Amino acid sequence: MIRLNTADAGFEAGFLALLDQARETTTKVDAAVSSIIAEVRAGGDAALLDLTGRFDRWTPADAAALRVTEAEIDAARARCAPELLDALDLAATRIERFHAAQLPRDVELDDPLGLTLGLRWGSIDAVGLYVPGGKAAYPSSVLMNAIPARVAGVPRIAMCVPTPDGVLNDLVLAAAHRAGVTEIFRIGGAQAIAALAWGTATIAPVDRVAGPGNAYVAEAKRQVFGRVGIDSIAGPSEVVVLADASQNPALIAMDLLAQAEHDESAQSILITTSHQMANAVEHAVQDALLTLPRAGIAGESWRRHGAIIVVHDWEEGARLVDRLAPEHLEIMVSEPGPLFARIRHAGAAFLGAHCPEALGDYVAGPNHVLPTGRTARFASGLSVYDFLKRTTWISAERRGLEAIGPAAVALAEAEGLSAHARSISLRLG
Amino acid sequence: MIRLNTADAGFEAGFLALLDQARETTTKVDAAVSSIIAEVRAGGDAALLDLTGRFDRWTPADAAALRVTEAEIDAARARCAPELLDALDLAATRIERFHAAQLPRDVELDDPLGLTLGLRWGSIDAVGLYVPGGKAAYPSSVLMNAIPARVAGVPRIAMCVPTPDGVLNDLVLAAAHRAGVTEIFRIGGAQAIAALAWGTATIAPVDRVAGPGNAYVAEAKRQVFGRVGIDSIAGPSEVVVLADASQNPALIAMDLLAQAEHDESAQSILITTSHQMANAVEHAVQDALLTLPRAGIAGESWRRHGAIIVVHDWEEGARLVDRLAPEHLEIMVSEPGPLFARIRHAGAAFLGAHCPEALGDYVAGPNHVLPTGRTARFASGLSVYDFLKRTTWISAERRGLEAIGPAAVALAEAEGLSAHARSISLRLG
Repeated sequence: MIRLNTADAGFEAGFLALLDQARETTTKVDAAVSSIIAEVRAGGDAALLDLTGRFDRWTPADAAALRVTEAEIDAARARCAPELLDALDLAATRIERFHAAQLPRDVELDDPLGLTLGLRWGSIDAVGLYVPGGKAAYPSSVLMNAIPARVAGVPRIAMCVPTPDGVLNDLVLAAAHRAGVTEIFRIGGAQAIAALAWGTATIAPVDRVAGPGNAYVAEAKRQVFGRVGIDSIAGPSEVVVLADASQNPALIAMDLLAQAEHDESAQSILITTSHQMANAVEHAVQDALLTLPRAGIAGESWRRHGAIIVVHDWEEGARLVDRLAPEHLEIMVSEPGPLFARIRHAGAAFLGAHCPEALGDYVAGPNHVLPTGRTARFASGLSVYDFLKRTTWISAERRGLEAIGPAAVALAEAEGLSAHARSISLRLG
Repeated sequence: MIRLNTADAGFEAGFLALLDQARETTTKVDAAVSSIIAEVRAGGDAALLDLTGRFDRWTPADAAALRVTEAEIDAARARCAPELLDALDLAATRIERFHAAQLPRDVELDDPLGLTLGLRWGSIDAVGLYVPGGKAAYPSSVLMNAIPARVAGVPRIAMCVPTPDGVLNDLVLAAAHRAGVTEIFRIGGAQAIAALAWGTATIAPVDRVAGPGNAYVAEAKRQVFGRVGIDSIAGPSEVVVLADASQNPALIAMDLLAQAEHDESAQSILITTSHQMANAVEHAVQDALLTLPRAGIAGESWRRHGAIIVVHDWEEGARLVDRLAPEHLEIMVSEPGPLFARIRHAGAAFLGAHCPEALGDYVAGPNHVLPTGRTARFASGLSVYDFLKRTTWISAERRGLEAIGPAAVALAEAEGLSAHARSISLRLG
């Protein structure tokens, strides 16, 4: 953990070091991944059975066994605690409502010159959703990835989840059921991405692949990009908390550690106008670590990547936030609105003292799949837009062609594209 | 050129061959590009001068000479024919109007449980626009790339254009001026992309890079992706023309050749319900090739990748269009509306007999940067959305936290993330 103060001479150097901190350990897996993809393309279902036996320590009896049945999903839901199913349902309902509110409208523009111009939104036909299995099985992530696709109108949502030693997480199946996933397959790793992109006899190909995964999954997404669309490849998670002197340091400490407990590469940063608050949070983090089940991971993340920055005022604080462009931003000041309005770059913001980031991770409604590693400067969280695409259109009467055609002919000739020019002038002639 | 008929036994095999046709010749340039990027990161402006001397056959006197001055832009505009400046201005005005109509609105959702949820749109701070130089200098492309960024509100738009042998295209400079480009640099290739992404003393880094380029530029964009956002990497251009028996075959032929004249990898496909029309267009293409200045390129594209497909009815035709998901789609039938409504996948559509695709390339208003190679299944043309990003936000009163907090605690505990759970339960306690 580093402490910085904008009043210190060494501040800029320290802040730049924080910005440039390499938090990701990239494993070189491109050759392994391209051979797995080639195997699946050549071998189809047989390759999937073989690869699953090799990597997931269980061998499906046949290709049909790769698909999770309705009966298995029902049985899994029956094993879930009713209060968890209720919590899933509350979360799903709220996520649906927020994403439906994002749905864009078509544009139609009548032109005084006699043309009509339009933009029409439509959904993708089929989406593949990757869900990590084993220890890091997150039902909340299933809701956050599948619901925007369903709200966008995607008719087919195929999900792949690895089942190491054949084990499936009941709550993940329940979340997939609630979110409207249409097919579930027990396949993981690069082979799942290859099957979704290229298709096999059992798995029809999709048009876009989304969802988190390990280095193999990320590299496979990179390699199938172009054949299908992909979502952004997420880096380690991060939070910036802005807090004034009026806040409760124990709450801030727990918010910082909630981020840090994800993994050792996560980053938690406090920016405060108060030296006392800086000291109090530093102590509160140490206190909280004494009782936290994931203290090993959270403590390591805090030691390696944590930071507390004291700023002179919130104008200065806002400028630092824009340079950090954090994935998550908590604004715990007495009047968060004006400060939020001043900040340009953040994936998701949490305003006020009653709004810990964990609320947004699960049930508030906005998506928890967000741009990491300063990419909020140009990227956005997952939304219905990721599952929609646009077709623009032009309709012209002869009058419209006569009005603007000659300008197009002049520009086409200037660019040396005569057939372009003639396709218009022939119609005018 | 191949002729297919859905009534023939071999149709599906022939159509699949058409779908799988590899039209792109990819050059392997990744090692060369990564060494150029490393040079620019290490050497800054000095590396840019050196690389420009090596690749563009002219050596700028110093780093300041890399930037095109206001006086040079004014002089270039003065040398342009007034009717071309007028055509550029008409095009720019119409592109501005269509893109402004796309601007999305913020979402704010008041929640009966005592939370407010929102989605706020904001522009990217700085965009880098790559423009090819030399022979393939397209002023229309400058308008199509820069105007959406300006309409989105991007304050800084830096353009890089190579000037082989020091030569700059006057109309490209005029287009940049009209489109609101804020800085122009005489730099091309992978070194331009590296400078835009990493910055040098002369060129401040940007947050997103857009614009077409050769294999080096495309590979450089791939390599800087993550540090900055990039646009999609365009493949060869394509058009599908749907035409019924009532159309003029000479116009259809010229529309097919307008696509084909771009380069030998371009693809033009006619789908028609009429055998007579199929024959007439085939002959009209041969006739038109006799007088076309770019007949060499257009003829080669038509021979290699052209196709004429006769279908039984438009229901069948629409299904084929969705499988092709073409970049451009002309619907030349007597009532184009219902047929367009039936089709799901196309980058841009041109409805009716008076609407050649070239109109959209230059002056109609919608963007001409469109998804190629069947990616219209999941991707869209360039728009204001490429230069905007979203921040979602949550604001909760204590009442809101009490209403939904317990569900979040239950899910966090189920996922084994105790600090997440505690960050909420501490506030409820």
